Formats: sequence, C-alpha cells, structure tokens
Amino acid sequence: MAIFIKDVLLNGETTSILIENDTITGIGKNLSMPVSGVSPNKKDNLTVIDGKGKGKAVLPTFANMHTHAAMTLFRGYGDDHPLEEWLNEWIWPAERNLDEDIIYWGTRLACLEMIKSGTTLFNDMYFFTDAASRAVADSGIRAMIGFTGFDFFNPETAEKMKKDISEWYNNLGHSSTQSSIIPVVAPHAPYTVSGDTLVWLADFAAERNLHYHIHMSETESEVANSMKQYGMRPYTRLAKLGILDKMSSRFIGAHSLHLEEEEIKLLGDHHASVVHNPNSNLKLGSGYKFMYQELRDAGVNVTLGTDGCSSSNNLDMLEATKTMALLQKGWRGDPTTMPAKEALKVASLNGFRFAGINAGKVEAGAVADLLLIDLDNIGFIPNNDTLSNYIYSSHSEAIVTVICNGQPLMQNRQVEDEDLIKREARRVAKKLLQK
Amino acid sequence: MAIFIKDVLLNGETTSILIENDTITGIGKNLSMPVSGVSPNKKDNLTVIDGKGKGKAVLPTFANMHTHAAMTLFRGYGDDHPLEEWLNEWIWPAERNLDEDIIYWGTRLACLEMIKSGTTLFNDMYFFTDAASRAVADSGIRAMIGFTGFDFFNPETAEKMKKDISEWYNNLGHSSTQSSIIPVVAPHAPYTVSGDTLVWLADFAAERNLHYHIHMSETESEVANSMKQYGMRPYTRLAKLGILDKMSSRFIGAHSLHLEEEEIKLLGDHHASVVHNPNSNLKLGSGYKFMYQELRDAGVNVTLGTDGCSSSNNLDMLEATKTMALLQKGWRGDPTTMPAKEALKVASLNGFRFAGINAGKVEAGAVADLLLIDLDNIGFIPNNDTLSNYIYSSHSEAIVTVICNGQPLMQNRQVEDEDLIKREARRVAKKLLQK
Repeated sequence: MAIFIKDVLLNGETTSILIENDTITGIGKNLSMPVSGVSPNKKDNLTVIDGKGKGKAVLPTFANMHTHAAMTLFRGYGDDHPLEEWLNEWIWPAERNLDEDIIYWGTRLACLEMIKSGTTLFNDMYFFTDAASRAVADSGIRAMIGFTGFDFFNPETAEKMKKDISEWYNNLGHSSTQSSIIPVVAPHAPYTVSGDTLVWLADFAAERNLHYHIHMSETESEVANSMKQYGMRPYTRLAKLGILDKMSSRFIGAHSLHLEEEEIKLLGDHHASVVHNPNSNLKLGSGYKFMYQELRDAGVNVTLGTDGCSSSNNLDMLEATKTMALLQKGWRGDPTTMPAKEALKVASLNGFRFAGINAGKVEAGAVADLLLIDLDNIGFIPNNDTLSNYIYSSHSEAIVTVICNGQPLMQNRQVEDEDLIKREARRVAKKLLQK
Repeated sequence: MAIFIKDVLLNGETTSILIENDTITGIGKNLSMPVSGVSPNKKDNLTVIDGKGKGKAVLPTFANMHTHAAMTLFRGYGDDHPLEEWLNEWIWPAERNLDEDIIYWGTRLACLEMIKSGTTLFNDMYFFTDAASRAVADSGIRAMIGFTGFDFFNPETAEKMKKDISEWYNNLGHSSTQSSIIPVVAPHAPYTVSGDTLVWLADFAAERNLHYHIHMSETESEVANSMKQYGMRPYTRLAKLGILDKMSSRFIGAHSLHLEEEEIKLLGDHHASVVHNPNSNLKLGSGYKFMYQELRDAGVNVTLGTDGCSSSNNLDMLEATKTMALLQKGWRGDPTTMPAKEALKVASLNGFRFAGINAGKVEAGAVADLLLIDLDNIGFIPNNDTLSNYIYSSHSEAIVTVICNGQPLMQNRQVEDEDLIKREARRVAKKLLQK
C-alpha cells in the first residue's frame, strides 16, 4: 500500500509526499511518483492524490485526548440544565439502557464525526469496551480504550471491579491483535474511586505498561471536597498515594482545570500529561482559567480534548483548538499568547506523544497520520497565512482528505458507510433514550 | 415572485411555508402549493423547495451587528501580535492602499461568506461607502452602511469630516433607491472623535432619522483614559453630552464590554442597543465578562456581531453565537444561563429589531429572511433537539438555503458568482497588502 500526494502545500512550500505502508517515507519537491507502485507486486496498491488545482495544504491530524465516544448519542439531550439535574434526571437514567449494540453504533458515529473533522487518535473512557474496540477497528481510526472503574468507596464494588478489569485485560491479551487499539486503565475520578483502589489500579497498570486516564480537578467544588475530606488538593493526594510516581509519563489527567502551583510542579516533576477540554468546561460552567503556560513551563505535556458530546456538543478538534487559543488570549488579556502553531501542537503532536505514536508532524520517518485542507474553502480566502486561517477562520469542512496509519479514511469528504452509520445511530439513540 | 417550502420542520412540527414577494404570507400543515404561481401572470416565478427527504428545518437568519466587511481581505494577516504593533506595523500601513476596487471586492467576499453562514443583515463601519453599498446590492443581502468618522480632536479634520458626511448624505438622497441599504452615521469612538463632533453627528443623525454606530468601552485602558481625561466613564460622558437622549433606540454601541452598573442603567433608560463581539474580544485579549443578563434586565437591546475578519477571523454568526453562549455559561459558572433559544434571539431578532426590520422570526406577516438546515448533517445526528444541535454542535455548512427579503441567495450551498468573487478577492488582497 502506498500513497503519493503530488504538489501539496507544506509549511508554505509546494512539495510531494510518499507514504509506504504506515510511514511517510519521502517528502520533496522533486520526489517522483512511483512508476509501478512501491514494490513490483503491489502496483495496483498506489493511490495518487493531486494537491494542485485550486490548492491543498497538508497538516498533521488531531489527537482527541478525552472522550466518551458513545455519548455522541446524547448530543443535545438535556442541554442548558443545572449539572446535578442533568445527571440525575437526564443522563444516568438513560445510561441504564446501554448495551453492546448501542455502544457499537454510538462509537461508530463518534469515529465518523472524528474522521470528518481530522482526528485519527482518541483517548476514550466509557463502558462496553469490546463493542467500542470493534467500532474503532471497523472505522479504521485508532483509539486508547479505557476500562472505566468506579467503586464508590464500597469494598465489595471494589473487589468486583478488580475482578472485571483483570478479566478484561486477560481477554484482551488473547483476542486483540489490533495495533490500532491501546488498552488503558481508566478510574473515573478521585471522588468516585477509593484511594486503595486508585493505588491498586496504578500497580495493575504499571506492571503491564498501561496508561492511566482519570478525571481530575474539573470543578472547584470537587477540589473543596478533597480539602475537606483529605486535607489536601486532588493532585497532592495522588502524589502522596504514589500514583504519579508509578505512572509518570503514562498518567493523563482530564480537565485539570483548578490547579495550584504546587500541583503544577508535581505534574511537571513526574512528566505527566493533562487534557484541556475548553468547550466542555465552558458549557458546564466548570471554569475557564486553564493554566496552559504554567503547565507547559513546568514540563507538563498539555494535550487537548473535546470531552463527550453530552457536554461539548461535538467531537470537532479544530473547533476546540480555536476555543482553546481564544480563551487563553481572552482570560489572560494577551493576544500574543498561544499562537496558532502552538495551539496545533497541543491539539496534535502532544496527544500522539502521550500515546507513544510518532505522529502529529509531517516529516519523513513519521507515522502517516495526516490530512489535506482545501484552500478554495472560504475560510482560506484570501490565504495570507494558511495555519492562521486553519485555526482561527476555517471549519472542519475544509478538511477533505484524512489518512490514518497510511490508510485513507476520507477522500473528497467521503467516508465509507456514512449513511449506514447515521441510520444505525438514529436507531440506537431511540433505544438509549426511551424512558 | 413566490417561494413554497414544502414539509419543513418548524419548532419540531412539519409544516409548509409560502413566501410572496418579501413577506411570509402563510405557514401551515395543510397549506397547499399555489397551483399556478401567486398571480396568474407570474406562474413561472414560483420556486418550490422540498423540506422532506432526509429532512430540513427552517430558522430565522442572523443579523451581524458589527462588521468592517472589506477587512475580510486581512484574514490571517498579522495574527498573534500585540495590539499596537498589529495596528501600526500591519493594518494601518496596508489601509493606505485602500481604493474602490479593493472595497468592492472585499465587501463582496464578506457578503459571500455571510450568505454561506446564514446572515442576511449586517451593520458595517468602514471606508468607501459607495463601493461597499454597490457590493451589498450586487450580493442581494442587506446592510446598514456606516459613514465612518474620525477627527482626532483636530478642528480642521472635524470640519472636513462634517463636509464629507453632508455630501455623502446628499448623494445618497439622490442616488440610492436600494431599500436593502440603510445609511448610518458611524463615528469611530469617543477616543478618536472630539465631544463637539460626536454631538454634531448626533444632531445630524437625529434630524434625518439615521442610526448611530460607535465603538464603546472595548478595552479597560480606554475606560481608564476616559476617567483620567474627563473624570467619567465613556457611557456616562455620552449621556452627559446628550447623545443617548438624541439617539435613543437608534443608538448602537459596539463591544460595550467594560461597563459599570450606572452605565447599564443609562443604556436601558435610553432604550439603546449594544453589540457583543465575543470572538474578537477574546482574540485581541480585550476581555470576556460581557454583562449580558444585566444589560437585558435593564432593558437594553443586546445584539451580536463578529467584528472584522482582521480580529474575528471569520464572519460566521453561528460560530459567534456558540462562543457567546458558552462564554456566558463559563465566566458565570452557570450552565443554565443563555440557553440556545435566547442565544439565537440575540443573534437574530434583536439585530433586526435595531434595524427596524420585521424579521428574525419565522411567522406569517414577517419579512421573509430565513434559512434551511440539513438535518442529515452530522451535527444533527441524533437529533434530540434541533435548536440545541444547531447552536452547540453544528457548523454553518449545515445551512443549505438562505432567503433574504423573499429572494433565494443560496440553494444547496450554491451562491451566484462564488468563483468570480473568490478570484477577484484574491487579486485585490494582493493589491491591499503590497508594501
């Protein structure tokens, strides 16, 4: 399998790109098209994409580092209500209806939306991981699939959860040969999982080299509760429990919005990652003063996510990137902070780095996750600055081609099975939301 | 001229809509299609739009109440620089190159972008008003075109400006028969126009029943300067000068971001309007705590705008509406504030109300400014709540049809002259940005 992208704009220069299997193997102005495919017996496996005509630019794809993919089925359901009412009266009753069928098609819908908006990696935390993994594999995208754990401070629930996660992992070991799925240990949050279980899960993850994905410091009240209950802030407690030591760069804290200097230093010292979810934080009224600069300067790997569609309400990373960049400038009162290039790095390279995938950049030797944008889209007219127009002016509809791991998942905005996925998603949404 | 929209979703119910000339004349489930056009001699002038199939919903169009339309040519130019450097080294030197040709095609580009994102009225403040007005008329959209005034506290400049604006108005009286253009008096700001001239312009506008459009309290430093120079805040000064009294509901203050209670009360007492520009305020680091609730509760007509593409960086009102709603929830820490329905009212009805146009609603008797959205767009799947999906999840690309004053300006996302406008815009952008 090879792809030759001819005459495309990369960092302002017209060039060509050769992709062989899952890797970018050549970039250059005078790169010539493989005459008969890459190897003699694969001559029919060459895809040629022309960047000329009205012009196309190539950019890395997005890594959406905090999602609840199947919750896309909740899009627009119970919006504009207070948080507790929304959970108690809208979301939780419906979640009792969840089954494999709902999760499979909900996740397919999420993957479709992510492919159409240029995302090729997401970090998921939800239920029915087998069904979700099948949906990811069938979509051709890649994902870190978290086994979500809660024990609600109940020792019996904790024992059951430990049993379930061990089973899950053992079954993975036998059945999963998909390199596109990275299994992750995902305790929900320090206020829904006991300290003992959090530590047990960190040991479980560390022994198996798994990543650790957890909601952290999303709201002020959860920080206040932690102070009241444990006499310390959530990240200080996680460090005291030894979890940051055990997980180090395999740790990722979603939201991480309400932080103090001491916690930022702890995160940096442990080479941890965090995920900023600006649209979700705004919509739920959780806050907006995300400490990007401070985290970056302390050595934390800052990534970006959309969160689930129940709060974001889409999975569009280009939109999230714009919101992130604008919000940093806005609350700091500084138009020079987080320029377009840095915003894209957070939304792309930093996420792939956490997953240990050599993507998020268009370079020879990198994994071939990339996208093409149509410079005839109105957001690029006139095109005084391609990257600036991409982040601040255009929408994801300007993205016309998406390649993941060397495989084209979208060409001319066409994705396989789009109509089927929409039809099935509408069907299972009815099942999910029936009273 | 008549349009019959068959089987379209309006507020959750399937209905049909008849438009005759510029007015919505009928809405109803059993409304039958005019058999031979509206009047016997106009039978070929009936356009039928089918809302069935995969489903379409009808909504009012947007009113973008603060723009500098031709500045669309600056899109992405000099982004991420400090404000003073951006103005002194990027924008102002280029503006010396402005001419009729540049303004005409820059405004055509702006109109194209606005039509494609569902806007049918905008309130503009820039230069070469004749060229801008021609572009508006040729686009089929409608606009309030402001004559921008500066005197920089120089009496000679003030005299010239008064002469220019009188000439402008007299020429309008003779040449303009376009009902789609509403002339407006637009002094730039209280820190670039002297008090005497601000008052003279208010008298000029009041005598002729013109609207008055001015930048107000965009940055904290301009408020601090007003306190230092005049011992009062900008709106207090405007009221003392008698301008709010003279203009009343014909007054609109762009930005109006840094306000105190006393100023909000003055605005409400005078039935004035303000324009919120959330994306521009964030991007320039001007602030974000727009006092929506307080202004609304004081009786102020709050409208929405994008500002120019040099700071926003697009003219997409759907995106601005989402940013506005999210930002209100975010900085107030309240997910129930500004629900989708109220956000759309600010972005649509309130703008048309300021202009004195009976649009911004889909009702029999209203002016026929409306749009259709494609419910098969991924932002509407599943469609648990059309309005919520529209504001929080979808992009303007879901808008497929736009009707302004009873005339279809976009059908199936096709707008007349799109390729020509893009080509000419690229040409004049080069001319504008040459050193």
